[in-house]
Amino acid sequence: VLPTDAVITDVGSTKVEVVARAKSVFGGAAVDRFVGGHPMAGKEHSGVEHADPDLFQNAVWFLTPLAGQNLLAGLQGQYFELLETIGARIVPIEAERHDRVCAWISHLPQMMAIALASTLLEEFGEKSNGASEPTLRELHGIGGRALREMTRIAASPYSWWRDVALTNTTNLEQALMRLEQRLAHIRESLRDPALREEFDRANSFARQMQPRSKE
Amino acid sequence: VLPTDAVITDVGSTKVEVVARAKSVFGGAAVDRFVGGHPMAGKEHSGVEHADPDLFQNAVWFLTPLAGQNLLAGLQGQYFELLETIGARIVPIEAERHDRVCAWISHLPQMMAIALASTLLEEFGEKSNGASEPTLRELHGIGGRALREMTRIAASPYSWWRDVALTNTTNLEQALMRLEQRLAHIRESLRDPALREEFDRANSFARQMQPRSKE
Repeated sequence: VLPTDAVITDVGSTKVEVVARAKSVFGGAAVDRFVGGHPMAGKEHSGVEHADPDLFQNAVWFLTPLAGQNLLAGLQGQYFELLETIGARIVPIEAERHDRVCAWISHLPQMMAIALASTLLEEFGEKSNGASEPTLRELHGIGGRALREMTRIAASPYSWWRDVALTNTTNLEQALMRLEQRLAHIRESLRDPALREEFDRANSFARQMQPRSKE
Repeated sequence: VLPTDAVITDVGSTKVEVVARAKSVFGGAAVDRFVGGHPMAGKEHSGVEHADPDLFQNAVWFLTPLAGQNLLAGLQGQYFELLETIGARIVPIEAERHDRVCAWISHLPQMMAIALASTLLEEFGEKSNGASEPTLRELHGIGGRALREMTRIAASPYSWWRDVALTNTTNLEQALMRLEQRLAHIRESLRDPALREEFDRANSFARQMQPRSKE
């Protein structure tokens, strides 16, 4: 039912499964028929009232070229140009690499935010009736910007993340496990100078990020 | 050596230990001699070049009154007025309660940021030489605002957190342990509808925070 002179693309958060499906559906023609894509922009709320014409301005848009696929030629090339028109920064990346990177920089922080918000609600949500207890909202106002950012993305609904959890499970399991181990190590080092090494490593990461954050 | 008509205060991040020390030093006179305080404002960088005259404008400033201490009377009252002059919102809170709340809304998010940054550096820091590997800086630019906020506070040095880790150890251990358990539960639920419950709880938390975030 699809004309053969149409190129199919997608904007899903994981790429390995959808690329494999495209290959099995289109076979050798996949290089002319399909380009996997993933715009790294979005909001924690959906609906036309949250629409923003500049949403993709300077946002990274991953494209996952197939082996031998030229993103600049044919219909893919027209799509490439369209993305540039809306201001996206196109970053070609291999699908497996894409999914692993996104597990670390996007899916893991999301799950951290869910874990933090869920645990905070359990800790303070029901007990906040006593007069001396700060309410949840007071806590939110008292905490810093990083806490508020984590809380903000914790508004993201399960329906948006269900497919991520189901199609990037192994990468996300690994990232979560590594973070859990690191948190446990920090917890066991609170009274120990070994905690300094964790801070030094994290500081080094933050330092390497700094020039970009000043842009 | 201190005149008896001076009131001592502090701006430390934990209050139980310093309040106990004030009681043991001043005895019954502690109510007239000491007020524990903790301004909830700051930056990830120190030094006079980062000074900001509006730093405390609308920032919460915790005071931890002793039993029977009137924060509005005497020298404490003058201090109270001074804090209001610089725009601080004074929140009286019991010292034990203060330390537990701060473990959850400030010290835990800080350790999460350290754990994330430290793990990201290990995961991508040394391997990012291959041509197809996004560099650390690219990752940072590609990730969302929450990732950047976490990275920002990961610049905070060990010297600022050492005393927190040493004086709020039990509360922080508990918060870290609870978060680790929650992350493990999420990791084990990635293929399971139980993940929806975690999102629902986190969404509920985020929803309760929303009115304030629109201020």
